[in-house]
Parts: sequence; structure tokens; C-alpha cells
Amino acid sequence: MQHKTSWIAAIGASALLGVSLSASADDGFADYRERFEPLPHFPPIPADNSLTEEKVELGNMLFFEPRISASGVISCATCHNPALGWSDRIPRATGHDGQIGERNTPTVLNSGFLESQFWDGREPDLEGQALGPIEADIEMAMQLEHAIERLTEFSLYQEKFAAAYPDDEDPISTDNLAKALASFQRTLNTPNSPFDRYLRGDLDALDEQEKRGMVAFVDNGCAACHSGPAFTDSNFHRIQVPGSTDVGRYEVTGEERDMYRFRTPTLRNVGVTYPYMNNGATATLEEAVAIMGSEMLGREFEVDKIDDITAFLHTLTGEMPEFEVPALP
Amino acid sequence: MQHKTSWIAAIGASALLGVSLSASADDGFADYRERFEPLPHFPPIPADNSLTEEKVELGNMLFFEPRISASGVISCATCHNPALGWSDRIPRATGHDGQIGERNTPTVLNSGFLESQFWDGREPDLEGQALGPIEADIEMAMQLEHAIERLTEFSLYQEKFAAAYPDDEDPISTDNLAKALASFQRTLNTPNSPFDRYLRGDLDALDEQEKRGMVAFVDNGCAACHSGPAFTDSNFHRIQVPGSTDVGRYEVTGEERDMYRFRTPTLRNVGVTYPYMNNGATATLEEAVAIMGSEMLGREFEVDKIDDITAFLHTLTGEMPEFEVPALP
Repeated sequence: MQHKTSWIAAIGASALLGVSLSASADDGFADYRERFEPLPHFPPIPADNSLTEEKVELGNMLFFEPRISASGVISCATCHNPALGWSDRIPRATGHDGQIGERNTPTVLNSGFLESQFWDGREPDLEGQALGPIEADIEMAMQLEHAIERLTEFSLYQEKFAAAYPDDEDPISTDNLAKALASFQRTLNTPNSPFDRYLRGDLDALDEQEKRGMVAFVDNGCAACHSGPAFTDSNFHRIQVPGSTDVGRYEVTGEERDMYRFRTPTLRNVGVTYPYMNNGATATLEEAVAIMGSEMLGREFEVDKIDDITAFLHTLTGEMPEFEVPALP
Repeated sequence: MQHKTSWIAAIGASALLGVSLSASADDGFADYRERFEPLPHFPPIPADNSLTEEKVELGNMLFFEPRISASGVISCATCHNPALGWSDRIPRATGHDGQIGERNTPTVLNSGFLESQFWDGREPDLEGQALGPIEADIEMAMQLEHAIERLTEFSLYQEKFAAAYPDDEDPISTDNLAKALASFQRTLNTPNSPFDRYLRGDLDALDEQEKRGMVAFVDNGCAACHSGPAFTDSNFHRIQVPGSTDVGRYEVTGEERDMYRFRTPTLRNVGVTYPYMNNGATATLEEAVAIMGSEMLGREFEVDKIDDITAFLHTLTGEMPEFEVPALP
């Protein structure tokens, strides 16, 4: 029901679309616009996991496959729900047997642009990320060897893995499971948001309030950490939001300096990926802006400023990606 | 990403398509073919719930809406998963907090053709059926008044309910929730299966084995209960399949004669709605055919006959319906 090959056409065109068209136009904010980068149509593709149609199709199937969970009803798409901004819109992730985790589910949208994965950055890339939630006791609670056994039972998966990894003797492996899921996720990007159109020269794509919000976003220092095309430096910063005792990256490194540090989350599509913060305790974007002002920047934003910045952040919601609801075997 | 209005065109055309085109053709099985009815494109629409585009769109949203469950992560689509034949492909339904119910999840495909709903027929129609799983402690575990409160929080639902029920003062109600879900489900039909094409005159739509299976299906009495366009008489028959102690319809009526009686399940798409039986303990269609032969018909089918009937049953898999993965508020 979708155009399967459109992402292939798009990846070919994305280099062109990355070029700014706005050189001659000016709405008085040229200096500000130049600080930002439009979202490319595709993130970097790692040399050891080329993006092929076969892997993306397989990854799409696996993303929706609940039978690689212990209960048989939880898939990646349960918490990363395409109907809910590829997240879950509840404070903290709910997984196997209704267990509730400690952290808010990050959206998978544009996750290929992040230079580390998970709130604590414990994996460097999507290949490393993909298997974690399958194994985690409070998420899908499935031993990877059992997941591989289940997939191997289906002749359709035997075919699709063989097609995606034609040089492998045993193509159904944990490595290839991770690579296929990562490949699919690298197609889940949201280009052409109003802000991207603005950066590319459509100066009417943002209204006056949204432009004021852009200025406030820069002038108040938000852009220091929320930088780059995905509005994240992929770096770790110390924050304890209301209600959180989570030690963050300290759990990964054991180093004192990493206490309470979390990776900067992307702001792309932040308007549709509520609630906010590592513990999901912040319901609205206005509250989130106020908290970031006071906790990270030491500023008590006035209501007008909060509204302006919030309006700007809503312009970062892009075109939702195409995908298949696969017919699983 | 789909053609929103195609079901409207289809409902207009369905009367035409219901006409048999095969009057002049004959492959030697005319007497058998005449015992069957092709699946109409649409089931009967009740007078008090007209099928409108607005209700279907709203019902589509609600079907995928997990926030009308207590956990916030279970929707109708969790167990009635479009990727899995609009069922779950596990033996027994798994719901709130990982609780496992007593019965296998029936597919919602073509459920509008059934004259009673649930394995025990405790509701007469889809309007009656729709609210049960939301409330059930082992499914979505949500009090209906809380579901209504949650939906009312979203301005988009306020708009969509008002558009679907323009004459209602308080359009967000349990009645209208049920009507919208029922309306959406009435669009989830699977016409144009190989067998339907065969009945309409494409005599090559079935191969020789499948035709032998059709003959065996009639001659052995399967068609006595699996009758009508959806291959069910919507009636109740006594059966205790291996491993089941479920008393079935007795739970509804309390009448001794209803002990162990279950409503005949549809055989439409039975090839993609495994596992089988009220307890889901039967993994393959071949086993299911053998069990039905011995338990219901007092016949021990030979392997060849089982294979023929199974081949025939696979011809009942039709075209999967179009639907939206909605953008939820």
C-alpha cells in the first residue's frame, strides 16, 4: 500500500535537496538561519551495513514482528508506534508483563542521525541498539538465540534473510537481525518540515512568532547542545529533571563525572513525541521548554518567550516516513 | 498512504460483483459450486448505524488507539494485528500485564458477516462486541468512563466524533465509540479470494487438488456448519477439542444444553489465522481438519483427504483490506 522504492529515489535525490536555495532571499534573519542545517533525507550509512532494499524490507517485517518477544505480542512497533510519532506517548516504557521501565521511549524517527543510542548513549549506533530491547527483561524479554530459532521456523524469513545477506552461509543470525532493523530505521526520517523549507529558502514557511522562537532558541543558548541537523550534539549533559533519580550515563561508565548525564535528545518532531524528559514526567512542550531554561540555562523564561520557542519547535515536525504494515508469515 | 475512499466505491460496486458470471462455464463441478456463495464486498449494515466515511475514519483511529487501555500500550490492533491476519497468531490472547486469556483471538476480518460475536456468541453484533475487550480485565482493562474521559482530552477526537455524529449533543460516548469501531470493522473484508473468483466463473482459479478438497468439504459434511459467504452458520455446536475444558456458550446462557458449545468460526482466511480452535492449541491447518473430522463428523480422514481439504481452505484467503495507520493525537 506504499511506494516501496520511493526511499531509493529519495536517497539519490537527497544530496541535491541538501543544498540551500536561500542564498539570495532575506527576511532579516539570515544570520540566524545560517546557524542551522536542514535535515538530509538520509543519515550516514555505515560501510559495513550498506542500505539495500532487501535489508529494509526485512527490517520492516522484523520491526513489526511480535513473535521475537517472550509473550508473542510485543514488537518494536509496540513502543515505537507509527501512530504515535514512532514512540508511545506514555511517560515510561511499558513492556513484558506490563512492567514499567525507568525511562521515556525515544522516537526512532531520525535516530540514524544520532551519534550514540539510548538515553545513556550505551550503544554507538543502530546496529548496537537494535538487539537491546528484544533481550531486555522489561521490554520484549526474549533471549536472542530463541528469537533466531523462532525466525528460522518460518520459510519466508529464511528466504528474506537469504535475499538480504546472499553471501552468508547462515543468514539468520543476531548480527543480521540487528543490521536489518538498523537499515529499516535509517529510512524513518522526516525531512521537509516547515523549518527545513524555511532554511532552504521558503521564507514564508515560518510565521513571525516561529521566527521569534528561532531567535530565542539561538540567543538563549538552546542551540549549543541542540545543534546539527537532528538538533542534538549527541553529547552527554548533566540534568536532574523533576521526579528523576536516574543516574544516566553513570550506569554505563561508572565514572563519577557521568552521574546524571544524558545524551541530548533530538528535537526533530518534538511536537508529536510527548511526554518529555528521561522520565517522561513532563506532559507539555511548554513545560519542557521552561524546565530546560531553568535547569540547563539558568533562565526563567517568560510566558511569551516559552510560547515563541514552543511555536518554533513545532516547525521541526516533518513529513512522516513511508513504511509497510507487513504481511507476516 | 492508502486510498481512503476506495471502500466507498467498492460498496457501490459490490452488488454487481455479487452476480455469478459462471452460468455458461462448466468444469464438471457445477453442482458443487452452486452450494457456495462468494463473499460480498460488504456485510449487512444495520439501520441504526449507517456506514459513513466519518465513522470509518474515526473507527480506524480508535482501533489503533492504545490510550483507551489501562496500560496505555494495548489497542484493538495489538491482538487484532493487521500484520498477522488481524489476529495474533499465538494460542490464547495475551492482554493487560501479560495475562493470558482462555481463548484464541478470532480475526476481525469479515466479522461483520457473523450473526453473533465472540466464541460463545454473547453479543449479537459488532456494536455489542466492540466495548468488551476494552473493559475486560485481562485485555485492555479500562473502565469505559475512563476511556471516554481520555478521548475527550484530545481536541482531534472532539472534532472527529462531532463530524461522525453531527446530531449528538455529546458525541464522545460509549455508544458512539462502539458504533465507530463497528463501522471500521465492517470495512475489513477480504473479497476476491481464489475461491470467490472460481465461484464467479474463473474455473482455473482453483487447481485440481483444491477442487477435490472442495468436493471432500461438501461430501464429508463440513459445509453443513461452515456455510454461507463467511463459511459459518453463526450457530453453536458442541465440541471439546484436545486440552480444552472451556464450557463455551454455557457461560452465557447457563443452560445445560449449551455446555461446550461454541459458535462456528469463519473459515475465510483460515490459512493465515493459525493457530486454531477455541484454545488455540492446534498449530496447523492439517491438524485442525483432522480434529474436526474426528470430533464433529466422526470420520478419520486419510492423509490425502486432509491435504485436499487443507489446499481448498487456503483458497479462502482473500485480498487484505486497505486501512490507515492513523496519525493519532
